[in-house]
Amino acid sequence: MTIHTIAPRSGVAFRMSQGQRLTVIDPEGEQVSDLVAFNAHDTDEWLSSGRSLDYASTFLLTTGDTLYSNRSSPMFVIGRDDVGRHDFLLAPCSKEMFARLYGHTEPHRGCFGNLAAALAPHGIDPDRIPTAFNVFMNVQVDGATGTLSVEPPLSRPGDATTFEARMDLIVALTACSAGMSNNFRFKPIQYSIA
Amino acid sequence: MTIHTIAPRSGVAFRMSQGQRLTVIDPEGEQVSDLVAFNAHDTDEWLSSGRSLDYASTFLLTTGDTLYSNRSSPMFVIGRDDVGRHDFLLAPCSKEMFARLYGHTEPHRGCFGNLAAALAPHGIDPDRIPTAFNVFMNVQVDGATGTLSVEPPLSRPGDATTFEARMDLIVALTACSAGMSNNFRFKPIQYSIA
Repeated sequence: MTIHTIAPRSGVAFRMSQGQRLTVIDPEGEQVSDLVAFNAHDTDEWLSSGRSLDYASTFLLTTGDTLYSNRSSPMFVIGRDDVGRHDFLLAPCSKEMFARLYGHTEPHRGCFGNLAAALAPHGIDPDRIPTAFNVFMNVQVDGATGTLSVEPPLSRPGDATTFEARMDLIVALTACSAGMSNNFRFKPIQYSIA
Repeated sequence: MTIHTIAPRSGVAFRMSQGQRLTVIDPEGEQVSDLVAFNAHDTDEWLSSGRSLDYASTFLLTTGDTLYSNRSSPMFVIGRDDVGRHDFLLAPCSKEMFARLYGHTEPHRGCFGNLAAALAPHGIDPDRIPTAFNVFMNVQVDGATGTLSVEPPLSRPGDATTFEARMDLIVALTACSAGMSNNFRFKPIQYSIA
């Protein structure tokens, strides 16, 4: 099985067939990978955080949970999950986000820019990028006050999470570019498809 | 100032100009209104839960908080807010949702169907409908377990929340169709624009 590496602060896109398994690996630990997906045969169907959270009745999705499309169709089921803590609330980091929240004057294009560049050859416009499933991202939620705080991921070197495709998909995946999300050391992400 | 009424289990869409204020009123109490918005001059720009939650660093948005577009532009700022409890996590109720979560065999088209019908004359496709800002919807969040539970709204008869438009907008608004969201009595919603 080929292991692909996504260089730090970059992204890729690829096709998957229904029934295939995508394994996202954190080779060094404490890194995040933003994942979005589209129906390979009709890219107007997209991975929907709002649908998935509603059907799961939890914001913490892990083994056995389904990720749904905007049309309520299963796109993935989560298989083996070494980490069990992912985020599905926050939009991908972007140059606007780095300027606004980090005060960067020459902001990186972020996961959003990396997803957009990776999806362009598949004919998917940046405005179609939804809230990502942020693999390994650790957003702590205070249910009483509402506060969302981005903490270092719980993933240790070699930890992995598997996603079983329930339809033919175009998937985009990043090695995250936001310091706060990866404990301020930019690292690669690895993945395999089987 | 004209007060418009949205009949129970229905929806409307309208244009707003930058600087106008939309006031959403719950005339009978314990009712929810799903709100989505698009840039009136470029409907590829849409209200984004993921961007708004990231910039606010809270899932409980109220007076003074900004609702952002997918392009990180302010669409609304929340003004007066009698209730202070709204949801920005869950997708609009839909026929698929009523079938899946409520077991309905002849499901209502829900807020999603009502938003789609109201937005069609504005040239906005159903696949472009994002996670709504669910005015008055009371989703309790358990930060430790992740559990999301839909509870009766905290709104009392006559309570209102105001949204100040920060760009020219196409807005769609519903009187919610989901029993769990409105304590199992379908009621109207009212609104005014000033």
